[in-house]
Amino acid sequence: MKSLLLVAHGSRRAESNSEIARLSERLAAKAAANFDVVEHAFLELADPLIPDGIERCIARGATSVSVVPYFLARGTHVAEDIPEQVAIKQAEYPDMDIHITDYLGTSDELVDVLLKLAG
Amino acid sequence: MKSLLLVAHGSRRAESNSEIARLSERLAAKAAANFDVVEHAFLELADPLIPDGIERCIARGATSVSVVPYFLARGTHVAEDIPEQVAIKQAEYPDMDIHITDYLGTSDELVDVLLKLAG
Repeated sequence: MKSLLLVAHGSRRAESNSEIARLSERLAAKAAANFDVVEHAFLELADPLIPDGIERCIARGATSVSVVPYFLARGTHVAEDIPEQVAIKQAEYPDMDIHITDYLGTSDELVDVLLKLAG
Repeated sequence: MKSLLLVAHGSRRAESNSEIARLSERLAAKAAANFDVVEHAFLELADPLIPDGIERCIARGATSVSVVPYFLARGTHVAEDIPEQVAIKQAEYPDMDIHITDYLGTSDELVDVLLKLAG
């Protein structure tokens, strides 16, 4: 049973965190063919944090978790902090397949998205 | 003559700033039907800063500048800092059409981009 965990930075602004929750709901609505479960989590400043997000996926029956970093650049958060948090849960659940996908900023399709925004 | 100015946050990591420069080049390659000029700029920490990015567009003959914020959330940078920088140049060039588009995070298509990344 596959799950997708959208991971964003987290903000002191509640509205920014709510944007992520809404994005996660839209993902869930479209992901049904590929993922049974979609959850979201934050690296810091907001709940649920990454370990809790992984727990939510497991509690809903997931046997794999695809962690998708909602980040534009490969800074310390993407290169170190997210992998560190994920590794803790992987050690706790050695039979689970928990892996981190490429981060958003690597997607070739952002060019088209930006051109459409530019009008 | 229309120009597109991609505006990213800017980083202390040179590699992150280079990623933006490469993205801007890929935008330029695809934007030709809609924009004669594509440049990039940073809000802080890296050159060119926003005012210099606008100047580059003007120096290349632009009569309009579409400023596209490469940001995921509507924080202070999107809500206040970018508009403030843009307003300074608009006051300096009252005949130019300098406007800010929606920021990347508003795009409905990010759902599809994320699903593709998740695999």
